[in-house]
Amino acid sequence: MRDEAGGRRVVIEGVEPEIDGGRFPIKRVVGERVEVEADAFTDGHDAIVCRLLWRPESQAKWNEVPMEALPNDRWRGAFTVTEQGRWLYSVLGWVDPFKTWRRDLKKRVEAGQEVTLDLRVGAALVREASERARVARRKAEARVLAGLADDLEADRDPAERLPLALDDELAQLMDRHADRRHATAYPHQLGVVVDRVKARFSTWYEMFPRSCGPEGKHGTFRDCERRLRYIAEMGFDVLYLPPIHPIGKAFRKGKNNALAADADAGDVGSPWAIGSEEGGHKAVHPQLGTLADFRRLLEKAGQHGIEIALDIAYQTSPDHPYVREHPEWFRKRPDGTIQYAENPPKKYQDIYPFDFSGESRRELWEELKSVVDFWIAQGVRIFRVDNPHTKPFPFWEWLIGEVKREHPDVLFLAEAFTRPKIMYRLAKLGFTQSYNYFPWRTRGWEIVEYFTELNQTEVKEFFRPNLWPNTPDILHETLQAGGRPMFVQRLLLAATLGASYGIYGPPFELMEHVPRERGSEEYLDSEKYQLRHWDLDRPDSLREIIALVNRIRRENPALQSDHSLRFHKTDNEQVLCYSKAEGDNLILVAINLDPGNPQAAWVELDLEAMGLEPDQQFQVHDLLTGARYLWHGSRNFVRLDPHQVPAHILRVRRRVRSERDFDYFV
Amino acid sequence: MRDEAGGRRVVIEGVEPEIDGGRFPIKRVVGERVEVEADAFTDGHDAIVCRLLWRPESQAKWNEVPMEALPNDRWRGAFTVTEQGRWLYSVLGWVDPFKTWRRDLKKRVEAGQEVTLDLRVGAALVREASERARVARRKAEARVLAGLADDLEADRDPAERLPLALDDELAQLMDRHADRRHATAYPHQLGVVVDRVKARFSTWYEMFPRSCGPEGKHGTFRDCERRLRYIAEMGFDVLYLPPIHPIGKAFRKGKNNALAADADAGDVGSPWAIGSEEGGHKAVHPQLGTLADFRRLLEKAGQHGIEIALDIAYQTSPDHPYVREHPEWFRKRPDGTIQYAENPPKKYQDIYPFDFSGESRRELWEELKSVVDFWIAQGVRIFRVDNPHTKPFPFWEWLIGEVKREHPDVLFLAEAFTRPKIMYRLAKLGFTQSYNYFPWRTRGWEIVEYFTELNQTEVKEFFRPNLWPNTPDILHETLQAGGRPMFVQRLLLAATLGASYGIYGPPFELMEHVPRERGSEEYLDSEKYQLRHWDLDRPDSLREIIALVNRIRRENPALQSDHSLRFHKTDNEQVLCYSKAEGDNLILVAINLDPGNPQAAWVELDLEAMGLEPDQQFQVHDLLTGARYLWHGSRNFVRLDPHQVPAHILRVRRRVRSERDFDYFV
Repeated sequence: MRDEAGGRRVVIEGVEPEIDGGRFPIKRVVGERVEVEADAFTDGHDAIVCRLLWRPESQAKWNEVPMEALPNDRWRGAFTVTEQGRWLYSVLGWVDPFKTWRRDLKKRVEAGQEVTLDLRVGAALVREASERARVARRKAEARVLAGLADDLEADRDPAERLPLALDDELAQLMDRHADRRHATAYPHQLGVVVDRVKARFSTWYEMFPRSCGPEGKHGTFRDCERRLRYIAEMGFDVLYLPPIHPIGKAFRKGKNNALAADADAGDVGSPWAIGSEEGGHKAVHPQLGTLADFRRLLEKAGQHGIEIALDIAYQTSPDHPYVREHPEWFRKRPDGTIQYAENPPKKYQDIYPFDFSGESRRELWEELKSVVDFWIAQGVRIFRVDNPHTKPFPFWEWLIGEVKREHPDVLFLAEAFTRPKIMYRLAKLGFTQSYNYFPWRTRGWEIVEYFTELNQTEVKEFFRPNLWPNTPDILHETLQAGGRPMFVQRLLLAATLGASYGIYGPPFELMEHVPRERGSEEYLDSEKYQLRHWDLDRPDSLREIIALVNRIRRENPALQSDHSLRFHKTDNEQVLCYSKAEGDNLILVAINLDPGNPQAAWVELDLEAMGLEPDQQFQVHDLLTGARYLWHGSRNFVRLDPHQVPAHILRVRRRVRSERDFDYFV
Repeated sequence: MRDEAGGRRVVIEGVEPEIDGGRFPIKRVVGERVEVEADAFTDGHDAIVCRLLWRPESQAKWNEVPMEALPNDRWRGAFTVTEQGRWLYSVLGWVDPFKTWRRDLKKRVEAGQEVTLDLRVGAALVREASERARVARRKAEARVLAGLADDLEADRDPAERLPLALDDELAQLMDRHADRRHATAYPHQLGVVVDRVKARFSTWYEMFPRSCGPEGKHGTFRDCERRLRYIAEMGFDVLYLPPIHPIGKAFRKGKNNALAADADAGDVGSPWAIGSEEGGHKAVHPQLGTLADFRRLLEKAGQHGIEIALDIAYQTSPDHPYVREHPEWFRKRPDGTIQYAENPPKKYQDIYPFDFSGESRRELWEELKSVVDFWIAQGVRIFRVDNPHTKPFPFWEWLIGEVKREHPDVLFLAEAFTRPKIMYRLAKLGFTQSYNYFPWRTRGWEIVEYFTELNQTEVKEFFRPNLWPNTPDILHETLQAGGRPMFVQRLLLAATLGASYGIYGPPFELMEHVPRERGSEEYLDSEKYQLRHWDLDRPDSLREIIALVNRIRRENPALQSDHSLRFHKTDNEQVLCYSKAEGDNLILVAINLDPGNPQAAWVELDLEAMGLEPDQQFQVHDLLTGARYLWHGSRNFVRLDPHQVPAHILRVRRRVRSERDFDYFV
């Protein structure tokens, strides 16, 4: 016979958000609200009370906030996370005899019933609360309650005692000293990882430092410094560098991924073939400069409002010092040689994977963590992790957990373009942001479906997408064929669908679009295998529209988070329409997905979702062109020419009642 | 550092069915399949294996069945439950190096690569399996494996050794002796309550025994015996009797729920006011007969294929022996009197609720269980539980769990017409079947919405609806106003939407339809408070159509379960169309919801859901009228006259290719 039957009669279930039964935390950034809902009910007709409990994990004492009863036994409460680190929340509920009594007493009075006995019942409840207050050393309140109990039972006309019984102050006192002995505590303490705001809103630029030098020369960190103003002027706040470590020589790949490098041609190899006699994951490629140069770059970048993100690629070239010093960290083939990377029948003999599950994994894992710690010590706080899906899940949960425990401001971006459940798992395990399928979602319905999944389902609680129209590995066929309109379109989509997005430049702004071969997503003459020199001042560069879009992002809070994203219907499948809102800031995007032709459409706005009144006029202000339009109601017309500007990014002014309310000068 | 990193690399999540994280069991009946799906995956590219584990709870050893890989890292397996009681299932998965090796070897061979070293890798895997077989005392298999390992490494042309390496028998042997040291066991062992088939498929008739006598006389169990043939001929297999116990006299209610009974008029009181000086929950009302008479009724009913269901109402009249013998089982008012039932401002002074959470709850709970045990000892196996939602949830979980542990064939029907989450909770806690909102779901869209929720969501795993068009408490306004067509319509809906349904007769078949007052769902001259005499032979009785409908249910397995229910679109909101299927048995129902007028509609069949080819002819055979029609493709026409037969119950014959395939004589 279960003892809880003694009184623990409230059931709490269906708590949201809750990831996998509480196995994983949700994610928030500092200043955000955590809104929690739960089903809570009891048998019979007694009144219940629900409280949301929350605390930073470092603090022992729970804070409490009342939950509000919604229809159908649903309850809701919220709290705000105010600092980085891990937080916890849970739900508490109890049957409240005083609330029940008070509710019923009102009904009895309304029905004109005799309530003398009921007042005695109430007096007993108040007396018990007085005793609880006394035990809790709230002497004054205990005295007040005792006095009220006496008054409720006093030998006076019940009608005179009723105002006392139904007094709000008494109810508040009773609430403060409710009987919680039989409260039901929801069995899970649910986690929140609270990051700094950049985890949610960030604008990335990927660049190969070695291509920043003068033509024909290997670039250096000093060259990168000179590039910072260019990047800052475009409005980026994260500069992500592919691996900056010494590069292996054994099995080095040549230009265009040729199987063997051409030594005479000075082939520089892939930065992801990490490690040579000059050092490994904690060393800097000598041709880039010194560690001191790198720290200087960090500092200069900071002066431009740019953070440097480093690449973490846990693999080695055959020349990496680890291979010699720790052969036990690698798997062996039957002939005693080290097992290189493979995806049969493909062989990657320039890359050795680690044996994450081998006998020496403990030392290996610690060493790999020390790599992150090393770069944190240099001042790095953002890491882009290469291929995390080919390493064991528990490794990442451990690594990220440990690092963030000491440095909650560190952010990890997962580069896993793999199966959806694996991508989600990595996010649950701790990755702050995630690459995702955006590069391949190019048609309207695909975008609607995918971004609805990301933003309107449980996924939004743990997966923060970072949208990249291109990467050194992905030159999508639409960019190969679509010309400037397609580059602009993909930029606008990434920058407005995603609070975090990035481009791989200069190939992006210079609209580099020739693949290595037909049907490939690899760039011809890819920077992965060779130095490139870029003419940044080309008149057709997209740098100006990039700068404009990024300024619009900075100035409009609606574009700095994702969960408010809503799609609106249009009568032309080539025209996509969606909105985002944050407080008063309401942004509506209409974009032509056809790079070849102007497209017109009637858009059918979901006014309710946008917080607009039906049948009202409102002003929309195109932040790309400065044009202003007066729109009316849900149905409005757009016409978008890809050879001019393929989209509207409209700021919507909600409460426009007449022409005079227009603000033409903002 | 988590040790599972050593090798437990498979993630298992998203297991379905799973109720509230495994807190509650799902429900099945003997002979049904349990189909289980799970997400399972690992890091990297290694092949994994998934097994579904299952066993009766009474058996220590797990059975295993392979799970099949579906798209997107989803896996599926199934087992069949073959006996009543509790069963368990879970999921196991592991990374399989041999499967990985075999898959990759094929790719290498196809690419024309040299595989000498790979064969040595494989030989090592086979040798390890041989060792595991030896330890498991499978000596013959160990020898075979050792021999194969030698052959794989033999100094022969790899091309000659390949057929051996890729041999299916080797793969099977390797599968049997896979390395499971690092297998991931899904952490929940999920429960199944397996009932007898009647839990899923049952046809109920509720009847007041005291109204079975000759006019003006209190009916007896002997009178009930004489009624059995009538009930059996209508095709019912459960006869549910309201409480058969002595009825209290204190505060006894009069006819039509009058506050005070009229002793002179011989008011008989409500059977739910249980207990008098003649006994309580284990006694029989003397005017009905003796306990021996009751057992005789049970036996006679059995001879007609009818089971008796008793009412369990855990409350007492003020005259119940418990009140005198165990005042501690009741709550007191401040004046020392026992607290009667209330729903302020309403008072039910003829009813005392138990204090389920009081000091003496342990003894009370045991006593209440002994009531069920008592009637089980008399031969009863079905209980309809009155108002379970006003007793603590843990009480029901304990009571039903204990009873079913000893008697897995006992079935409990929950009478809880309350808030949806509470109704679902009671089902999760153990109730076999549940009353539900069917009486109030009368419009087409309401029916579609509600039965989709019941049958197409997780609810179907734990909640078995029992559909009642009327009860002694519910004379719905549609029955008050709709005449015979409405009675027939509601009967047909209940009998075809629900594998379990019931009627309260004879008021139902005699179309009793006058409420006690306007706006009330109470019957005028309700049997709850007085004897009634019914003219069962009235020519307008619905007994024949009831008998026909119940025969159709018996003859068509599709109507004996609920989860296959699918709704089909019609172009007339007054015409509802749905189908159910079980193997070859496919039933399509089209029903006119308008009791006043004939309605016609084009129905748009979801052929795929019905397993029908597009654009094919098929025969439909109306089981209500015997008429046969040739239908074609998805779009077909119906016209239904409520004054004739308001519905088609069509048996669909799938594979009709020509006129000759018609079977006109079945």
